[in-house]
Amino acid sequence: MKGRKVGVWMVGAFGSIASALVIGALSMRKGMTGSRGMVTGNERFSGIGLPDVEQMEFGGCDIRRGRLKTAAREVLTTTGISESVDLDRIDEDLTRIERFIHGGTLRNCGDAIACLCAEPSGPTSTIRHEIAAILGHLRDFQDQLKLDEVVVVNLASTEPMLEMGELHNDLQAFEAQLDLDSSPAIRASTIYAYAAIAGGYPYVNFTPSNGALFPAMVQFAEAKGVPVMGNDGKTGETLVKSALAPMFACRDLEVLSWEGFNILGNMDGRILDNPENRESKIKTKDKVLSHILGYSPHARVHIDYVPSLADQKTAWDFIHFRGFLGARMSLQFLWQGFDSLLAAPLVLDLVRFADLAKRRGESGLMKHLACFFKDPLGVNEHRLYEQFRMLQDYADQIN
Amino acid sequence: MKGRKVGVWMVGAFGSIASALVIGALSMRKGMTGSRGMVTGNERFSGIGLPDVEQMEFGGCDIRRGRLKTAAREVLTTTGISESVDLDRIDEDLTRIERFIHGGTLRNCGDAIACLCAEPSGPTSTIRHEIAAILGHLRDFQDQLKLDEVVVVNLASTEPMLEMGELHNDLQAFEAQLDLDSSPAIRASTIYAYAAIAGGYPYVNFTPSNGALFPAMVQFAEAKGVPVMGNDGKTGETLVKSALAPMFACRDLEVLSWEGFNILGNMDGRILDNPENRESKIKTKDKVLSHILGYSPHARVHIDYVPSLADQKTAWDFIHFRGFLGARMSLQFLWQGFDSLLAAPLVLDLVRFADLAKRRGESGLMKHLACFFKDPLGVNEHRLYEQFRMLQDYADQIN
Amino acid sequence: MKGRKVGVWMVGAFGSIASALVIGALSMRKGMTGSRGMVTGNERFSGIGLPDVEQMEFGGCDIRRGRLKTAAREVLTTTGISESVDLDRIDEDLTRIERFIHGGTLRNCGDAIACLCAEPSGPTSTIRHEIAAILGHLRDFQDQLKLDEVVVVNLASTEPMLEMGELHNDLQAFEAQLDLDSSPAIRASTIYAYAAIAGGYPYVNFTPSNGALFPAMVQFAEAKGVPVMGNDGKTGETLVKSALAPMFACRDLEVLSWEGFNILGNMDGRILDNPENRESKIKTKDKVLSHILGYSPHARVHIDYVPSLADQKTAWDFIHFRGFLGARMSLQFLWQGFDSLLAAPLVLDLVRFADLAKRRGESGLMKHLACFFKDPLGVNEHRLYEQFRMLQDYADQIN
Amino acid sequence: MKGRKVGVWMVGAFGSIASALVIGALSMRKGMTGSRGMVTGNERFSGIGLPDVEQMEFGGCDIRRGRLKTAAREVLTTTGISESVDLDRIDEDLTRIERFIHGGTLRNCGDAIACLCAEPSGPTSTIRHEIAAILGHLRDFQDQLKLDEVVVVNLASTEPMLEMGELHNDLQAFEAQLDLDSSPAIRASTIYAYAAIAGGYPYVNFTPSNGALFPAMVQFAEAKGVPVMGNDGKTGETLVKSALAPMFACRDLEVLSWEGFNILGNMDGRILDNPENRESKIKTKDKVLSHILGYSPHARVHIDYVPSLADQKTAWDFIHFRGFLGARMSLQFLWQGFDSLLAAPLVLDLVRFADLAKRRGESGLMKHLACFFKDPLGVNEHRLYEQFRMLQDYADQIN
Repeated sequence: MKGRKVGVWMVGAFGSIASALVIGALSMRKGMTGSRGMVTGNERFSGIGLPDVEQMEFGGCDIRRGRLKTAAREVLTTTGISESVDLDRIDEDLTRIERFIHGGTLRNCGDAIACLCAEPSGPTSTIRHEIAAILGHLRDFQDQLKLDEVVVVNLASTEPMLEMGELHNDLQAFEAQLDLDSSPAIRASTIYAYAAIAGGYPYVNFTPSNGALFPAMVQFAEAKGVPVMGNDGKTGETLVKSALAPMFACRDLEVLSWEGFNILGNMDGRILDNPENRESKIKTKDKVLSHILGYSPHARVHIDYVPSLADQKTAWDFIHFRGFLGARMSLQFLWQGFDSLLAAPLVLDLVRFADLAKRRGESGLMKHLACFFKDPLGVNEHRLYEQFRMLQDYADQIN
Repeated sequence: MKGRKVGVWMVGAFGSIASALVIGALSMRKGMTGSRGMVTGNERFSGIGLPDVEQMEFGGCDIRRGRLKTAAREVLTTTGISESVDLDRIDEDLTRIERFIHGGTLRNCGDAIACLCAEPSGPTSTIRHEIAAILGHLRDFQDQLKLDEVVVVNLASTEPMLEMGELHNDLQAFEAQLDLDSSPAIRASTIYAYAAIAGGYPYVNFTPSNGALFPAMVQFAEAKGVPVMGNDGKTGETLVKSALAPMFACRDLEVLSWEGFNILGNMDGRILDNPENRESKIKTKDKVLSHILGYSPHARVHIDYVPSLADQKTAWDFIHFRGFLGARMSLQFLWQGFDSLLAAPLVLDLVRFADLAKRRGESGLMKHLACFFKDPLGVNEHRLYEQFRMLQDYADQIN
Repeated sequence: MKGRKVGVWMVGAFGSIASALVIGALSMRKGMTGSRGMVTGNERFSGIGLPDVEQMEFGGCDIRRGRLKTAAREVLTTTGISESVDLDRIDEDLTRIERFIHGGTLRNCGDAIACLCAEPSGPTSTIRHEIAAILGHLRDFQDQLKLDEVVVVNLASTEPMLEMGELHNDLQAFEAQLDLDSSPAIRASTIYAYAAIAGGYPYVNFTPSNGALFPAMVQFAEAKGVPVMGNDGKTGETLVKSALAPMFACRDLEVLSWEGFNILGNMDGRILDNPENRESKIKTKDKVLSHILGYSPHARVHIDYVPSLADQKTAWDFIHFRGFLGARMSLQFLWQGFDSLLAAPLVLDLVRFADLAKRRGESGLMKHLACFFKDPLGVNEHRLYEQFRMLQDYADQIN
Repeated sequence: MKGRKVGVWMVGAFGSIASALVIGALSMRKGMTGSRGMVTGNERFSGIGLPDVEQMEFGGCDIRRGRLKTAAREVLTTTGISESVDLDRIDEDLTRIERFIHGGTLRNCGDAIACLCAEPSGPTSTIRHEIAAILGHLRDFQDQLKLDEVVVVNLASTEPMLEMGELHNDLQAFEAQLDLDSSPAIRASTIYAYAAIAGGYPYVNFTPSNGALFPAMVQFAEAKGVPVMGNDGKTGETLVKSALAPMFACRDLEVLSWEGFNILGNMDGRILDNPENRESKIKTKDKVLSHILGYSPHARVHIDYVPSLADQKTAWDFIHFRGFLGARMSLQFLWQGFDSLLAAPLVLDLVRFADLAKRRGESGLMKHLACFFKDPLGVNEHRLYEQFRMLQDYADQIN
């Protein structure tokens, strides 16, 4: 949709996904690159009123201090695309964006993440104040840049698994908790999500952190008329899994074991090297197989931090299956992909769809976006192509 | 459908697929094994009137002389399932089936195949006589065993590519050719298909040989009210390809190269080691990618004969693709499957569907069976799950 | 050496390695199979006086009750070689061997192992009594079968890591401990090793359990004039590693990361699924790389239990390396081997060499056997071919 | 050896290996990079009088016109190391080198290579004149840069296989042929080698082209007191093969099949896509296995051109082997390496050794350099580590 200006407010703004999407969007604006890798680049999604990437503006927050240009250069170098992007041509834009990147909150997000912070310290403020501060940044971002809409996306490191309690299922009980500053039930991810929704801004959780979109928060979004969606962008091994697993079902081949080994070396990998953070991630990957197959084969997902790989996620999956007359066979796959460059265009897609949903008056979970997520909230369908059909049906119904 | 007796008449009856399907069907009849690996074993296909596998009878022809039990034992040994099947319990059945296995024709099927024959010699009879002889065997098979239907399936070795001419597009011109005994345009596969259709028997071409179901033959099937389908069972590398390739389209990732290397050691591999036979095979594998992606990446399929592997087809596919900002990534897969045991249950599925189609008065191409074939005649859809949906829709419309 | 009768006394006699080696040796005796897979089958080791496998006799102990024939059949089925061995022809021999298989001790060998026992219970006897009982079995075995020598080999499940203390370095202190029945420093593996050496029988530790051949035990062997060696047979991933890693050194390519993932489904895998047992295993695999390369790249070894694989160990190793001008490259390997069938012939080799060493008056560590072990005691050389040269030099010096 | 100035005269000077080695040597001179990837960087080779890389000068010839800087940039981009080298700092040196790069001869080197030439045309001169011209360039290069020595290295594209005749075995017969300008027995590679040796310059054939170092040429080198060596640098799949194959021999595991599939996208790959050129390559890879194992398993090497890979050679090797009791197992490896960056440092090593050999008065084949070649002339040893030991022994004997 020509002329519509949407702001992307990124939690984890100095991370590699954020850097990649900013470089990408600015390069598209300058005509240096195309939309390759974006689902919405496909013709079938033109004409339904998605806002243009070229008009997007960027801001956000990060618990680390940094420079966007430094982060951008690292992305380019570690993914072998230094030649594709001329950083000098987007230098000014990067600097301008930095004005809209603020500090973040570390509330209950675990030691691994706290260690990344320049000045790790406990929460220095009340929950209510933290929410208000974020809301202030959001409004300021919108006003200063005259944005038609702002979409908040969580691109921060994976928090440790949050144990769900009664209060996460009931909006009133949950809101009462916001006054208890020592509550372990309120995480950093909770605060960003709440602030966004409170301000009426669409929210997308691209991480596995389950502190953001629990039932009470979804109720809040419905009450506020705000569209939200998560969890955990489906970019690599799980993407392939959701494309391949239905094949075994179609052919009535019994999957005996599906073992997945992931190695990666970026910040995501460094954080996931901590058992408590890893647990969150593995949980979101977990449901795919049993939902698709209708039974639970022996299946474990391993994630290991291998610094030398940097952003090049490498995964080996070994699938042992049984066919006619009990014969045992196997399929293995090896995936080598740059996580940030696989994720970034999907985030742009999600921002476009979130803005559209808001304009169309949709609120609560955007279930039609299931194909983007490892653990699509409110959706039991994990087969990639069925999920993709849901997205096409959504678009077709608008056209 | 209880009580309905269907005969399976196999061209290539001493081959490993034929042996595997006979062992399987007899084992199912004895309650020694289940239907694992058969698409129609799935509940969604019960209740539409498919004939029972347990009631099927078997016969056919082969250019080689052999013993079913020997062939069966070899299949069991090379696939590691000797323990699963007690050959002694089906010994008598195997011997009885041998009575219905006749010699075959070598007409124009190339040196590689002719060498397999115990007494290789040129055609000793006219085309018309060969057709009549086969038809005689088919009728005799049906009469003696009091079969409700007979389905003819081509499981023989891949013939060299037949160059299609005018006469293959026009039924009359083609039938005139049947009187020209020196015509290179009539192959062994042509003769079996023609005989089956002439007799009103459904015909399935599970091989890549293109001498069977060209346009004129399909016209003949339509005229005779006979359902037919082909070509080339989709059992391994191409199956995975048709499940995976749509993923790249969904995510707008550009496939730069898709290189496939297949090694196998069975008779199929031995025949495909001849360039002229291999060409047929590679052709049927060829169309999948460009149809699914909408463009043609650099893609070659290699097939190599490695005797020590016996029936264990092993394939390596290397997929090079480009994403956001031009980054290059790769997906590789390694497939290790027993070709005969992957194929056999699908042949049983096809026989069941062919019998159903005949009863339902369908004739010509059974396009709803596309998901079973590498090169589904008359169908441009190569995406596995879309093909599978066609099959489900067919079943649902009956129910 | 013709005519020499050597007894093989196996700790873990119902395990898969023991079963495999018994089947193999008996099959060789009957002329049903050759020595393929045995290092000493090579001509260069003929003529140095190794005892013949065909003359070997078998006995041992196990904490489980079982039948050798059952264990043997399972080995054959899960490794796809049922057709190679006619169990009926060795049935009587297997039954005869069972007479020489006794119960074993569970002393301090951890919960995972204790669970395997039919009647798990704490030590019911003193350490000294347990030692005496084993010695009795050994002498009885030798006497009844008129054996020239008995070699004891530990093929039992991996015990949890034993923390080494002062007493493990000093023979006197260690022997004093044998009177303290509640000592956690004495393991089942300790008791078997001590009994063997006390009886003057050569001892080989084919497992990673470090409770057997600590410095005090080696001193004991030296004092008694008994040759011993360990630890942990080198059969799969580590074998390949020790062949490949020197290549990087030769070419001055810097290994950045070497990640190994092992999946297996046999009893070994089931026991190693317990973190405390796994730790022992990973320790013995650990030293290889840093010794060969001279520096320590990022390297982790993962072991995961995948029941469906049974004896087919499958390993993926990802090696990331850096070359000229800092370019990053990778080598990956996939290993699929039957652990028991890789191990069994090596155990026969070790028995032959141990008997030879004893006759030659050697005592203490048999360092020339380094190429057989993941963690060869007393040897810093981990390069496979240099280790193999040590073995050849030993043989050459005898010839 | 400090102060010694050696010139490297490269046939194929605009190719990717040549570019990589020039960038590397200049970067080492500027202190921008180290010697990683060079065998002679290892301490064990210091102190034997090898000339310093930092003092080397470069020249050569190419049938293509080009710019070194362009070629250099392409190498950096396609290997992902743009960040490692600052081309601006070596810009002047690159330009200076271009003055010493001349045109080359296309004589009998086949259509595939001729097509690369800017102005493809038949030989425009007599053989004797071509030799004289090259010799002139060599002398001029030496004189102008005051070089202590010049080493000629063949880095050009692989020529079609030359059928060896009588004249290639006898120096006199061969030299007579140099007057027959229409002789198909004289290739471009022959002319360069002859000119180098005639001028007393050491010569190294880093390619599979067999037109350079046949017996008569080696006799010529011996007569002239010139050290020479070849053929075909061992950089990737064959390197791994020569490290791994001895493992099977050590363990008496029988290799049944060893299938190698290589895909690559650089100029080398483009030329090898022609069957007649590929044949040369496959020949040099062929001998390795049978020499190491002592028997010939089923083994084929496939090379396929996949443009998108550029310099990233990717290889899949599938090794099927048989062990104890006939069990079948497999080892697979996947190699991803930048061919030019693996080759370049080895060429520098070879130049250093060639200069040393010349000073030491050695002539004819430098057999101690076997570890650098796929098909080391005059050497039957193909095991990597044994070959490396030959090199160490050579160095030790000097020290």
